[in-house]
Amino acid sequence: MQQPEHVAVVGLGLIGASFARSLRGEWPSLRLSGYDSDGDTRLRAVDLGIVDSAAASLAEAVAAADLVLIATPVRSIAGLVREAMQAAPQAIVTDTGSVKQPVMEALRGSDGRLPAQFVPGHPVAGSERFGVDAGDPTLFRGRRVILTPAADTASAAVALVRASWEATGATVEHMAADHHDEVLAATSHLPHVLAYALVDCLSAMEDRREIFAYAAGGFRDFTRIASSSPEMWRDILLENRHMIAPALDAFETALRHLRDALAAGDEAAVLATLVRSRSARQRFLDVLDNHHGSGER
Amino acid sequence: MQQPEHVAVVGLGLIGASFARSLRGEWPSLRLSGYDSDGDTRLRAVDLGIVDSAAASLAEAVAAADLVLIATPVRSIAGLVREAMQAAPQAIVTDTGSVKQPVMEALRGSDGRLPAQFVPGHPVAGSERFGVDAGDPTLFRGRRVILTPAADTASAAVALVRASWEATGATVEHMAADHHDEVLAATSHLPHVLAYALVDCLSAMEDRREIFAYAAGGFRDFTRIASSSPEMWRDILLENRHMIAPALDAFETALRHLRDALAAGDEAAVLATLVRSRSARQRFLDVLDNHHGSGER
Repeated sequence: MQQPEHVAVVGLGLIGASFARSLRGEWPSLRLSGYDSDGDTRLRAVDLGIVDSAAASLAEAVAAADLVLIATPVRSIAGLVREAMQAAPQAIVTDTGSVKQPVMEALRGSDGRLPAQFVPGHPVAGSERFGVDAGDPTLFRGRRVILTPAADTASAAVALVRASWEATGATVEHMAADHHDEVLAATSHLPHVLAYALVDCLSAMEDRREIFAYAAGGFRDFTRIASSSPEMWRDILLENRHMIAPALDAFETALRHLRDALAAGDEAAVLATLVRSRSARQRFLDVLDNHHGSGER
Repeated sequence: MQQPEHVAVVGLGLIGASFARSLRGEWPSLRLSGYDSDGDTRLRAVDLGIVDSAAASLAEAVAAADLVLIATPVRSIAGLVREAMQAAPQAIVTDTGSVKQPVMEALRGSDGRLPAQFVPGHPVAGSERFGVDAGDPTLFRGRRVILTPAADTASAAVALVRASWEATGATVEHMAADHHDEVLAATSHLPHVLAYALVDCLSAMEDRREIFAYAAGGFRDFTRIASSSPEMWRDILLENRHMIAPALDAFETALRHLRDALAAGDEAAVLATLVRSRSARQRFLDVLDNHHGSGER
């Protein structure tokens, strides 16, 4: 199996720190360098042993790497990929953005081609926790990582990125970038929009304190994703807004359908929706369990 | 402390079975009888030791009880309270419905008064699991139970119900019924509507199987409540639809605000919403933790 000798992680947040910790556990001799725009984060990453060294510039951090992971908010990725390719022409560069098409578009050259050494990727894993201290070596275990290479992407580059993600315990799959963005808009970005809007609307209610006091466990679970990193999610939602809009339309149609049934007191229609949703979610759990081999947590 | 000698539980699902299991643990000498419209559930409740006996009729189950708990879907509650009061005039009767005003309205006599021995109640606790096997003696520990007694309700009846819920480890509070229904519409019923609508809309998408395959942990948490009992939630949503409608209006306004900011590419407005939601949820967790003394699970 292919294996990098020196990995540079740019962006030492939840995803970058977790990737470094996973690889460190799997490949003890791996050299790990890191860069983060925040100085305290750089110091902390070294203190925690997440990376061997953290440089004060991206160029310095990646100079000697054969693999660079860009794990920063989506809208900064293309620029940082370009910087990394300039500072380390020998390196394979990959990213972790939740939106793939805009990143790839921004990286196309004047000839319309993508850099052969750039492998667009997205680990479908996360947590509402964020920051360097949230780094978790088991975060990717049993999760899927989607790579969306283009025709221009070098197959050796894809192989190295694949081997590195597999070392974290993830399953690697390929998908077309536009299809990735459409699927994630529905399963991840749309729920985040709804959770943010719900908490925002409740927090605007006058008796907010009391409202929250009487919320139960279901509310805690339902709104967990509204505690995710605002900067990261601002970028995701803005970059993928053209895919999120039709998903929101579909949601609003379903919501209108249920509202109308409620307003009409149509118990058969209300029950049919609830039964359908419940069995759809059960099928979803079945799919997940086939993949992860774990039951409902 | 007041203590019942014989409790009858009508409706041996998650809430009824959990209540019986909790009291059994706290008061070993308590007699427990049960009734459920489903014969298999009655047998199972006896097999599991949840109740000492399960009668084939409500009247028989409650005849000798001094406390009757009606833990059935909301729209059946008023009728069963009336049956229980007829069969056991000596008993205090309470319920567990998530909607309080319609139940109380249905029980008012021709003189407009509520029966003095009926104490309307609602344990703010639950799970997406349901049925007799889901009975959990710790379900109410650290949770809130809201009682919404009317001026007509006997204070001795309230005291007995309060003591019984406190024995399960819950904290008991009082609230006006209409205020209860308004608060729960926002914190519980609205999130359920959104989760049901979301899963319904995703399940209608053609490549559903694949969509679910790429959903991550956030989706699982976000949609957990869509696995709740459809019959129970049909009743809650229909009975409280007049309180849910304004909560849905407020949600749709917040959603429209976020959609508009996204469509306009207004990054400052998008970020402001996300930051506001995140800090509102943090305040919610603080309120919960002050109450339960537990951190984010």
